[in-house]
Amino acid sequence: MTDSLNASHLPPTPFLAVDAAIVETNLAAMSDAAAARGLALRPHAKTHKVVELAMRQIELGAVGLTVATLGEAEVFAVAGVTDIFIAFPLWADEGKGARLRALAENITLTVGVDSAEGARQLAATTAGAPIGVLVEVDSGHHRSGAAPADAGALARAAAEAGLDVRGVFTFPGHGYGRGTQSSAAEDEAQALAVAVESLAVAGLKATVVSGGSTPTAAVADAAILTEMRPGVYLFNDAQQVEMGTCGWGDVALWAVATTVSRHGQHIIVDSGSKTLGADWPAWATGGGRLPDHPDARITALSEHHATVKFPDGAALPDLGELVRVVPNHVCAAVNLADELMVMVDGAVADTWQVAARGQNS
Amino acid sequence: MTDSLNASHLPPTPFLAVDAAIVETNLAAMSDAAAARGLALRPHAKTHKVVELAMRQIELGAVGLTVATLGEAEVFAVAGVTDIFIAFPLWADEGKGARLRALAENITLTVGVDSAEGARQLAATTAGAPIGVLVEVDSGHHRSGAAPADAGALARAAAEAGLDVRGVFTFPGHGYGRGTQSSAAEDEAQALAVAVESLAVAGLKATVVSGGSTPTAAVADAAILTEMRPGVYLFNDAQQVEMGTCGWGDVALWAVATTVSRHGQHIIVDSGSKTLGADWPAWATGGGRLPDHPDARITALSEHHATVKFPDGAALPDLGELVRVVPNHVCAAVNLADELMVMVDGAVADTWQVAARGQNS
Repeated sequence: MTDSLNASHLPPTPFLAVDAAIVETNLAAMSDAAAARGLALRPHAKTHKVVELAMRQIELGAVGLTVATLGEAEVFAVAGVTDIFIAFPLWADEGKGARLRALAENITLTVGVDSAEGARQLAATTAGAPIGVLVEVDSGHHRSGAAPADAGALARAAAEAGLDVRGVFTFPGHGYGRGTQSSAAEDEAQALAVAVESLAVAGLKATVVSGGSTPTAAVADAAILTEMRPGVYLFNDAQQVEMGTCGWGDVALWAVATTVSRHGQHIIVDSGSKTLGADWPAWATGGGRLPDHPDARITALSEHHATVKFPDGAALPDLGELVRVVPNHVCAAVNLADELMVMVDGAVADTWQVAARGQNS
Repeated sequence: MTDSLNASHLPPTPFLAVDAAIVETNLAAMSDAAAARGLALRPHAKTHKVVELAMRQIELGAVGLTVATLGEAEVFAVAGVTDIFIAFPLWADEGKGARLRALAENITLTVGVDSAEGARQLAATTAGAPIGVLVEVDSGHHRSGAAPADAGALARAAAEAGLDVRGVFTFPGHGYGRGTQSSAAEDEAQALAVAVESLAVAGLKATVVSGGSTPTAAVADAAILTEMRPGVYLFNDAQQVEMGTCGWGDVALWAVATTVSRHGQHIIVDSGSKTLGADWPAWATGGGRLPDHPDARITALSEHHATVKFPDGAALPDLGELVRVVPNHVCAAVNLADELMVMVDGAVADTWQVAARGQNS
């Protein structure tokens, strides 16, 4: 790391660095993979929250964006994205209903629903605006989403409330784990197939059958799905590497941190949970990874301290030495930063604003 | 909650709400407790990052602020705080050295050191600026900090490099746990006593002997410490309640979230880890708490979903119903928000900017 970074030309640590060439490779690879399999790609922009990257995703053939919140949709709509799916069972109170109506005047807007009450509420507060809905079904992650067999009744209720039912979606989040990707993708396909059939029985056609996530994208069932919504793939992160979704060479974002303390076989670097996020699944080997020190482990994260343990006998970075730290979950890390530093040849060549940072509502 | 909140006058959920009356009570209580025990109070402003609250802490007798980063120090110095301790073993490269020099021209500035190399680097890049240092010692948390018996040698190296050694500090972070507060406070006092003696042997006086955290504040050893640095106490959080540091009536900050999905005995509310933070210690009962539903547990956090399970037979909130969600770790939640909504009688009476949000460097 010290070879490839010139500290005197860098911002103060900790900061988030992006390798734009790796991002471009990752964007093109997912775009090509989706096209080769006949799947529409609707990347989840909650990962990057960056206008420049959203536009590049569209240029490379994405049919539109996925977002998690109305606030994110507003940021990308203002930036010029014309087709956005809010993959969340929004409860549209009067305020959100008015904002949805305003959005739908300018873009093709689709919203998730997972209850008849939610659909009726959405219809009531958006008053005939051209807002499409996808019915969310639970494919095994057991978060939001109706039972797949209930999708038809829910879709029928939404249609009767006046909404334009465009199809069904699910998030196979149980594909985040060690070796769970294939079975989660099978669950996803099965749940979506049941949901599509349930809509058919209710007299409704699912034009959009949307699933996918970064770890399950490669094994998503193209015979059932029409669309995938991966988000993380453009940056990747330590979770993806530890799940085997990608290698270190595919990771395009990391924190640049300084070694500030050294005792025994552990060091402290200044990228804590306020830089990396605190996501730490039970199956992860630590609180993030140091790609240039693959045997080191982050054993604890405080807000401004990452404790990094090295094996007995291993050489430790020097005090003051810069290290690269890859977060476990890149979406969380990006959402903590106001900007990302675009690195070329070890120096900052450009800055991307995290335009939708903190747009949770 | 629905009784006390008027949804039509509220910002869109999720947002962070603060009860200013409880904050004032908490601020005064800690100030009084410190004064009664003869301890200086130097609150850690990384918790709130709000100028208005820093100023109120000073008005109530705090001797100055503690911060974690140089960026936080700059925000509060510009706002008029005149005495700041950066409780972190900063590595002062040329850029940070220049910023420290600029700060020291305007305020009384103290910085942590935990290595002779770090002290010499600080001295070299701040070139005779009036910057004090406190030697950090490890009292059992095993993060940064020198061994207490090594404090004297380290302080001597710092003094010989030209720095003004003002004393010693520690963070008894192992006091975060179930029933670990008293033993951590004993470790803290023991480590600081050894460090003070080590400085004395090296011919140096520790004028400042600084420790403390919110959970250990009540049991900090006033015979050894001269100063405490609690941060969380003004808001409190689910961790503090579950440790027994405070009760629900002392919690002054929560997310206001909407119930967006309901299946079986669980609901989904829209305050996920991008609102609450993902801190989840092994001893916590969940990913945050719902104070108005004390038997409910947050069993999973996604970025925009908190999964809340209720006991069999318990009534669930309605779809669309607002609920209060107290984060596990308030410092992390505040750092995700651009502003805090100050609530009076169920409506927003004021807004506090999180002025030092994201100031990690």
